[in-house]
Amino acid sequence: MIDVGIIGGTGYTGVELLRILATHPEANLKVITSRGEAGKLVSDLYPSLRGHCDVAFTEPNIDAMKQCDVVFSATPNGVLMNVARELHEAGVKLIDLAADFRIKDIATWEEWYGVKHTCPELVEKAVYGMPEMNREAIKKASIIANPGCYVTATTLALLPLVAGGKDDAAIHLNGIVVDAKSGVTGAGRGASVGTLYSEVTDSFKAYGVAGHRHHPEITQNLSVTAGHDVGINFLPHLVPMQRGILASIYVDPVEGADIAALYKARYENEPFVDILPEGVFPETRSVRSSNMCRIAFCQPKVGDKLVILSVIDNLTKGAAGQAVQNFNLMFGFDETAALSSPAVMP
Amino acid sequence: MIDVGIIGGTGYTGVELLRILATHPEANLKVITSRGEAGKLVSDLYPSLRGHCDVAFTEPNIDAMKQCDVVFSATPNGVLMNVARELHEAGVKLIDLAADFRIKDIATWEEWYGVKHTCPELVEKAVYGMPEMNREAIKKASIIANPGCYVTATTLALLPLVAGGKDDAAIHLNGIVVDAKSGVTGAGRGASVGTLYSEVTDSFKAYGVAGHRHHPEITQNLSVTAGHDVGINFLPHLVPMQRGILASIYVDPVEGADIAALYKARYENEPFVDILPEGVFPETRSVRSSNMCRIAFCQPKVGDKLVILSVIDNLTKGAAGQAVQNFNLMFGFDETAALSSPAVMP
Amino acid sequence: MIDVGIIGGTGYTGVELLRILATHPEANLKVITSRGEAGKLVSDLYPSLRGHCDVAFTEPNIDAMKQCDVVFSATPNGVLMNVARELHEAGVKLIDLAADFRIKDIATWEEWYGVKHTCPELVEKAVYGMPEMNREAIKKASIIANPGCYVTATTLALLPLVAGGKDDAAIHLNGIVVDAKSGVTGAGRGASVGTLYSEVTDSFKAYGVAGHRHHPEITQNLSVTAGHDVGINFLPHLVPMQRGILASIYVDPVEGADIAALYKARYENEPFVDILPEGVFPETRSVRSSNMCRIAFCQPKVGDKLVILSVIDNLTKGAAGQAVQNFNLMFGFDETAALSSPAVMP
Amino acid sequence: MIDVGIIGGTGYTGVELLRILATHPEANLKVITSRGEAGKLVSDLYPSLRGHCDVAFTEPNIDAMKQCDVVFSATPNGVLMNVARELHEAGVKLIDLAADFRIKDIATWEEWYGVKHTCPELVEKAVYGMPEMNREAIKKASIIANPGCYVTATTLALLPLVAGGKDDAAIHLNGIVVDAKSGVTGAGRGASVGTLYSEVTDSFKAYGVAGHRHHPEITQNLSVTAGHDVGINFLPHLVPMQRGILASIYVDPVEGADIAALYKARYENEPFVDILPEGVFPETRSVRSSNMCRIAFCQPKVGDKLVILSVIDNLTKGAAGQAVQNFNLMFGFDETAALSSPAVMP
Repeated sequence: MIDVGIIGGTGYTGVELLRILATHPEANLKVITSRGEAGKLVSDLYPSLRGHCDVAFTEPNIDAMKQCDVVFSATPNGVLMNVARELHEAGVKLIDLAADFRIKDIATWEEWYGVKHTCPELVEKAVYGMPEMNREAIKKASIIANPGCYVTATTLALLPLVAGGKDDAAIHLNGIVVDAKSGVTGAGRGASVGTLYSEVTDSFKAYGVAGHRHHPEITQNLSVTAGHDVGINFLPHLVPMQRGILASIYVDPVEGADIAALYKARYENEPFVDILPEGVFPETRSVRSSNMCRIAFCQPKVGDKLVILSVIDNLTKGAAGQAVQNFNLMFGFDETAALSSPAVMP
Repeated sequence: MIDVGIIGGTGYTGVELLRILATHPEANLKVITSRGEAGKLVSDLYPSLRGHCDVAFTEPNIDAMKQCDVVFSATPNGVLMNVARELHEAGVKLIDLAADFRIKDIATWEEWYGVKHTCPELVEKAVYGMPEMNREAIKKASIIANPGCYVTATTLALLPLVAGGKDDAAIHLNGIVVDAKSGVTGAGRGASVGTLYSEVTDSFKAYGVAGHRHHPEITQNLSVTAGHDVGINFLPHLVPMQRGILASIYVDPVEGADIAALYKARYENEPFVDILPEGVFPETRSVRSSNMCRIAFCQPKVGDKLVILSVIDNLTKGAAGQAVQNFNLMFGFDETAALSSPAVMP
Repeated sequence: MIDVGIIGGTGYTGVELLRILATHPEANLKVITSRGEAGKLVSDLYPSLRGHCDVAFTEPNIDAMKQCDVVFSATPNGVLMNVARELHEAGVKLIDLAADFRIKDIATWEEWYGVKHTCPELVEKAVYGMPEMNREAIKKASIIANPGCYVTATTLALLPLVAGGKDDAAIHLNGIVVDAKSGVTGAGRGASVGTLYSEVTDSFKAYGVAGHRHHPEITQNLSVTAGHDVGINFLPHLVPMQRGILASIYVDPVEGADIAALYKARYENEPFVDILPEGVFPETRSVRSSNMCRIAFCQPKVGDKLVILSVIDNLTKGAAGQAVQNFNLMFGFDETAALSSPAVMP
Repeated sequence: MIDVGIIGGTGYTGVELLRILATHPEANLKVITSRGEAGKLVSDLYPSLRGHCDVAFTEPNIDAMKQCDVVFSATPNGVLMNVARELHEAGVKLIDLAADFRIKDIATWEEWYGVKHTCPELVEKAVYGMPEMNREAIKKASIIANPGCYVTATTLALLPLVAGGKDDAAIHLNGIVVDAKSGVTGAGRGASVGTLYSEVTDSFKAYGVAGHRHHPEITQNLSVTAGHDVGINFLPHLVPMQRGILASIYVDPVEGADIAALYKARYENEPFVDILPEGVFPETRSVRSSNMCRIAFCQPKVGDKLVILSVIDNLTKGAAGQAVQNFNLMFGFDETAALSSPAVMP
């Protein structure tokens, strides 16, 4: 059994992580911290976990965390970086569900996140935790930067098409449009007027129009894969639903590119990427509470763009599920352990 | 492995049954029939099951069903009764998720369901499949009448309080008010204007005001338990949500009754009934996609009624989950097999 | 034109009031205050009002309010009572959409609202602003206590049946069960975790189980009407929808009572109470954004209670609409001015 | 008073038309037909209209329609064209809310709508009913082709930018991406599994991926305006909400184009187009139940496309509201008659 610590488990990614770990045969939740809920049973905050989790939240306590084999951090951005060094030096493996270790270029990170990075040397050491990009490195990693939700849906959709770079990619590497839509859990569980039920339901809007933090993370992934700069336009939208992301992606295919073959070659052995049959298009509910990403593509009968559609559950493959997938890889478990249940539908 | 057949698996209870059975270590889905979808892969109709189910729907075929060890029927009411005799005589165990075998009094059944019963002799033989009432009988049963959804939430809430009957029950046996609310999946997956998204969302209403079929099933359960007639008022409502039932029940407690002790005595060893701590009240999402029933009670500071609140997921404990619980009992498996995942929340 | 002031117009009842007044031919919005939004245009906070309202929020300012003919207060409970005396003495008419002047018994009010009342002498003077109870008094009132939302739906449903009191009422005056359900706007627009989209959607729960502030207001209305104490059990629930209240009410009818005749006699000339034809039951969407209350009753074929169903829009007839109805009566306008649009459906 | 007939008023555009006309001072609803609901009061089908409409549905009857001054047709596509000639020859003005007269090129229409056009000579005569494009022609028109919902949101967003054509347009005329999202009422009120509550809620998907009928209508509008072919990519999505469309549009601006000035010049006197201030972006609820279109644009800090966001209520400006706007123009009424209420929000 692996002793697991969780920093900041009161948000939606936290409770999703607890739900998944509750069914993991090798994970032993040893400590979970929350400044606001210290002393309260996890199952009092989340009655859905009654009978599945008998641990109470405790005050943040780095010494308790050092007793764990691995620590998942589900805090807001900019928190883990302040304690990461100490935990790392104590030999604790880290899986950060926030953004502190995702962007390799520190200046870019600081520009988008608006704070000084306090632990840049571990950014370099951290492995970007998308198994479909970095499986072997993840197995050996001590620090995982778990990918952003929009980033996961978009990157998986485009990886096979940008690989090969300027000369051999299946699509042109600039002018890509990513119109992404997310359920409201993506905005977190903090009290705010903007995510009140009555502000969000029966309405639809774009947000982050001038720029969103997942933009540089997507371009980093695609550019690394292509070996060349990849230029995208990215606009997120808020859908009145709980979970799920759909990315609608418009690209200019290179003449003669065999899109289907590229997806097949890249993903046929991936446990959590599902390329849909021709003419079938994904809906977010097909992945609700599951770790699957489903992708389809289409050349419409009018218009000149190739359309790619990609869905994930933002809390699962887009956060806690992918984190557990990384955990499984890091500790040598079956990659699908605790992640093999079908989506809950309807 | 147990060979399983499913009659009519295209509705919401059907897909929930498939979702649960997909994770059951001892169930082998051998045949699933649907007049409308014959020839189509289950996973084409329900992409959430891609990778979890490679069976195709077939035309109704009683000979194929006879090869199974057990047949779940998830058809509309009045279908299974026409083939039940033949399957039963072939030695196939039956679990009916519809209402054909629930009401022991044939005349009452015919009055509420509006058709002649074609197989009354098996009604007598059928065991009412609520483990909390009938566990031992279920283990030996060859035909299970799986309870109705509202009935499950209501019966579990009242069982400990009516037991003892006219003289020793904790509450008065008449004048009970059951104000019940259900998500829309309870209305099934048939095309109808009344359950269109735009008819149902952002609205709330009562239905079945003049009388609902679950009424006689509830009174049968309570009267059998009490050994006396129990009189209830029952009104269902439609909530703009997918899954979940909350029953708000108003009763007149007998002076001095120790309600908490009665619940504890009855349910402390039940795997799927959870009596909440004092002052905690249930919400339906705490049981979403789980087989749990959570119950709370309260004597408000004004008013003379005792209030009992009971939640289940109508598709799980209210249908497919309870059916699998019965399956587990009938075949000697762990009663919680395939039913132990926590609720998906949020 | 009447000069109108609004105290605290940033919440949902505030924006509903602004929406209605925007179409009122005789209302001139002169000043609207908000501590948090001072300086911001109303139409910047609520773009739905662009082109309909060119006023900006200002800091609370009692002198500006004194220049108005009437002030609507849409603040939280316990605010208006602190400035009411001064405004009243300045000759400003007051319409309080909060609860400060609703309960005649000061001790009861203080018990339920948890603060000392600072202006008890105006409680006596205030007229309870339900036109169906108090139309003539409202016309002459200088202070209106606008009724609570649950209270409006429940009182209108029961008024004709309790009138006559202990001897001649159509129903027994005790043991009444009011199971009420409200959309989420009823909880206001303050930032809180409990009303976040992802906490509320796709779930259902009761709240205020131990006791809710609308309880004493309902019993006050019914007891005043009956001339005797009327005892109710009241339990509110939260529906995942924006607007609307349905009250499901269970009563014991007196033998021989002609319920239909009583409703007809009481309401046939009421512009905003609609008794539905036999066999038709109300849904909340039929009154969305309208000032109408629709009521139906039924004696189900099983059970011993008479069921009454009553729907309103909690923001309109349950708050801002009824306030404008009172405004119309107070200033001698057509009672339906600005309130005659049909419900927005779907 | 103008005598109004409505063909096919049982769907969502029909009930929206009835809601708007109920407040129109010059419209007298004389006849409304429905094959399925003949004999039933409109207000029995739509209790929201109780007290506002005392007409009953009748069987389709062309002679009754001929007695009207104007007939609105809210039927499915391909119905009005079969009776349009006879009504037109009888001097009845026609406003078609379906697509029969929208596409000038008959072959294109037949390709997308899959049937032979039975009345091509009136297509030529029909005026495309978008007042912002064709106000003067509408005033004199006898047949109005009321625009499609997606088409309205998209065309209004792009009109000022494509005017001027190949040489002077503010954007490049090809490669435009229109990623559009609609509430579920856009799919109509017919019974179908795909629009059931439980199929649609808490999920998100694209549809019509291979091609959608509004595509040729958008390109017709833009090409007519530009005087050159305009090439777009168009993909619609289904949002779990009732009403509202958001179109997110990605274009390549021409260097030096003054986008703000172009919008201002084109729309500053339009009663139903609202260009939002810089930095403010529209949400669909800001136009719910109103006839307004709100538009914003932004050059994000990363990416090379200009983003335009446009919202309407699909049932109002996207259907019945625009139809009444056309009616007002045709009969010389104030263009905003019955259309001036603010959006209902929340």
